[in-house]
Amino acid sequence: MSSEPSRRKRKKNKTGSTVSTSCWEISPCVRSIKPLQYIPIALRAAQIREELKQGVKKPFREVIDVAWGDPQRAGLKPLTFVRQVLAACLYPQLLDSTGLPTDVKQRAGGLLSECQGGSMGSYTDLPGIPQVAQQISEYIARRDGGVPPKAENIFISSGSQWALQNILSLLVHGHGEVRSGVLTPIPCHVTSIASLLSLGGVSVPYYLSEEHGWELRMEELNRALENAKQVCTPVALYVINPGNPPGHVQRKKSIQDVIRFASEKRLFLLADEVYQDCVYTDDVEFVSYKKVLAEMGPPFSDTVELASFHSASKGFLGECGLRGGYVELVNMDPAVLKHACTVFSKDNAPTAGQVALSVLANPPRLGDPSYPLFETETRQMHAVIKATVRRVHEVLNSLPGVSCQPVEGGAFAFPRVELPPKALQKAKELGMEPDTFYCVRLLEESGAFITPGCEYGQKEGTYHIRFCIRAPGDVIEDFLGRLVTFHTQFMTEFS
Amino acid sequence: MSSEPSRRKRKKNKTGSTVSTSCWEISPCVRSIKPLQYIPIALRAAQIREELKQGVKKPFREVIDVAWGDPQRAGLKPLTFVRQVLAACLYPQLLDSTGLPTDVKQRAGGLLSECQGGSMGSYTDLPGIPQVAQQISEYIARRDGGVPPKAENIFISSGSQWALQNILSLLVHGHGEVRSGVLTPIPCHVTSIASLLSLGGVSVPYYLSEEHGWELRMEELNRALENAKQVCTPVALYVINPGNPPGHVQRKKSIQDVIRFASEKRLFLLADEVYQDCVYTDDVEFVSYKKVLAEMGPPFSDTVELASFHSASKGFLGECGLRGGYVELVNMDPAVLKHACTVFSKDNAPTAGQVALSVLANPPRLGDPSYPLFETETRQMHAVIKATVRRVHEVLNSLPGVSCQPVEGGAFAFPRVELPPKALQKAKELGMEPDTFYCVRLLEESGAFITPGCEYGQKEGTYHIRFCIRAPGDVIEDFLGRLVTFHTQFMTEFS
Repeated sequence: MSSEPSRRKRKKNKTGSTVSTSCWEISPCVRSIKPLQYIPIALRAAQIREELKQGVKKPFREVIDVAWGDPQRAGLKPLTFVRQVLAACLYPQLLDSTGLPTDVKQRAGGLLSECQGGSMGSYTDLPGIPQVAQQISEYIARRDGGVPPKAENIFISSGSQWALQNILSLLVHGHGEVRSGVLTPIPCHVTSIASLLSLGGVSVPYYLSEEHGWELRMEELNRALENAKQVCTPVALYVINPGNPPGHVQRKKSIQDVIRFASEKRLFLLADEVYQDCVYTDDVEFVSYKKVLAEMGPPFSDTVELASFHSASKGFLGECGLRGGYVELVNMDPAVLKHACTVFSKDNAPTAGQVALSVLANPPRLGDPSYPLFETETRQMHAVIKATVRRVHEVLNSLPGVSCQPVEGGAFAFPRVELPPKALQKAKELGMEPDTFYCVRLLEESGAFITPGCEYGQKEGTYHIRFCIRAPGDVIEDFLGRLVTFHTQFMTEFS
Repeated sequence: MSSEPSRRKRKKNKTGSTVSTSCWEISPCVRSIKPLQYIPIALRAAQIREELKQGVKKPFREVIDVAWGDPQRAGLKPLTFVRQVLAACLYPQLLDSTGLPTDVKQRAGGLLSECQGGSMGSYTDLPGIPQVAQQISEYIARRDGGVPPKAENIFISSGSQWALQNILSLLVHGHGEVRSGVLTPIPCHVTSIASLLSLGGVSVPYYLSEEHGWELRMEELNRALENAKQVCTPVALYVINPGNPPGHVQRKKSIQDVIRFASEKRLFLLADEVYQDCVYTDDVEFVSYKKVLAEMGPPFSDTVELASFHSASKGFLGECGLRGGYVELVNMDPAVLKHACTVFSKDNAPTAGQVALSVLANPPRLGDPSYPLFETETRQMHAVIKATVRRVHEVLNSLPGVSCQPVEGGAFAFPRVELPPKALQKAKELGMEPDTFYCVRLLEESGAFITPGCEYGQKEGTYHIRFCIRAPGDVIEDFLGRLVTFHTQFMTEFS
């Protein structure tokens, strides 16, 4: 970025006189955010789509987009109940129609009665629509077997990433060596790190262990923290469970270790748990940080500060476009909560996203008119993803030079690809990261759009690709076919 | 805030051993945000509602909430066309029903065809749903009579305030005397200043001239800038037109002066124009900064950097809860645009808000099946607000000790209230700002919820109240009646 022209320039206008332009420089915090690797690939994918529309001949008929954790983009259908409730909430005349099940109407009517002015078009006060906050509180209690959290500890927001950004804005400040640092897993999805950097924080990387199925290892956390102390003031530890991009699910023992570490090192725990209902391995279960913390008892349970994030974008809903997430705060000082209110007051959560959260937290139950369809839709979705995980694992690990750790949960496969020296050389000539080069070639030759491991961070000298596994079975099958053909050709070309 | 307990405390657990809690301190940027005056009033309003529900006797039967620029909260109905399109977009089965007009189905079908995976549940790429960006571009061209801006200069976001926050995050950085400063009008709605402060920027106040109908005066801008240079590096000038809270509409001459000032002082222009379709005075019209800038020609038109913000929350839509806004950037360096993309990539605009923006930018036209109803609804809305403005002006200016400058546009009346010395004394004893005291008493005695001028800034020794005028006629009439009765009693009590 250092080559970027200074903004303190002067410009000549047509009459030849010199006119000053702005005297500002782009914030170094924003400048420190790494340019996103996927953007040129995404732009090229859009171009290729356009070319196909215009009849340009390609070795494929359409682009497959499995680059994002966005199941509906990849072709999955939304759940009918969610969309029926939304339609009735936004156009309440539908409450009088005979076309919608009674529980849809009840849900919509209940939510509307708690909106100001009875309308989804009004701002909602903190923490969000009261009924939705209540449903989230009860959901957490059911999940963890504890007492429902108070509404004042829950903040509903425009997605879990905004909630994280808001919490980070409380934590992160300072300059130079006293800049706040946050321990961040590598690999890690990009938005969280971008939020941290844009606030002027330091991302302190700790590497997940690929050899151990992408486990979080305590010796690595310790190493990262010790190194960090020379450059910043570590204030928080960010964990993603189930993982993104690698689909590891953390075991209870590991969570206990992390909580002890956070307590000892006095770190605020930021637990990204948006894939909590996305676990695909029979002998592994998701356990929340909140639950483990409570079970550990004092002193941990009443001192370790924790923010747990969840979202309507992920899991069985997959409603990314509606924008709804929440954070639950545990052991937060009331003086801090007051400031959290100030920060979240700016972030007025979209009502449509809140409706989705209502269904996430309180889905139809046995006996409800909508239950049979809801149950069928979610069961089928679950069956598809379990079959996908098996199939992805089998195909990837049969490819020469490719290895994929078990995908226990989450939305992505993150296999490692051993790239031949000639491919590395070619990428270097093109000024590309090697795995970006691989993804670009895959797109050009097979029409499959995925993202490179360098976007998320990886150990030097290792290369990965990431793709979304939450997609219809035929899309995944088509994608895997294209990947196998491409990979074989690629390896031959550069062998 | 200095009395706040240090977070570097230690806590004793039940077994008597000392356990450390977090070692972080709340960001001083966040701490610098003034606690919101309205929060205790809003909480009390909610309590009073609850008391009324439980049968507690009060001198009123319900709370009137005209505290916010939120027309649907105040009781206005949403536009049918917006809600029909939304219902069809979110529950596309409705596209097959006979209950919706054909143009609703066309609009919904068109928008869905441009969503990834054909669904509102997918993330949208920058700048937003392509058709919506296109409609916004054409709207701007129609409004200003110019060439439609390119899509790359438009960013759709979760409301105009997020767009402002994103742009500020590019502009604002540094520490001490080189901290970025933004010239900000006083009075000013609170969210913008909170965003600026949370990023570590300095709010440089310039006072609007109440005596001149809340005009922006150049000598005051010059004074503010000169003063600011001692404490920060001014990089931008924030203007709100039409105003919020005071409903002044800026004349073309004044906009030209401001543009010349921005050019000379090399300031980035941030134009909050969210009330651009809310002008109520026949001989005044809204003119955009973009249009005036273009008309001024070089060197201004090709050098002055401008960000213009608009929103689906305001104006005739009033869809605050859906969250949709946009910013148009003018004369932005491509190197900066690249960073703007990085920042806006984190802010995925809600699809429901984007649907509302589609209607804002491209409403039904003569000949469309939905036009007659749309035209009736908007015409009635406009008639109501024009009558309201007349009535508010008449009532306020007939009250002893109250004076209200003409409300030419926007969503609020912001009258000045001369409070008697005894009332000032009483407020002091209660530790309240005098106009907060007035608002609290108004709420307790008449059930009307409005906000005090101190929330928005005002010249020392002057006091104001703010209330929303975008409400049904009977609500406004009821509110004014309560205000008159209360004010008369209040003045008698403290005379």
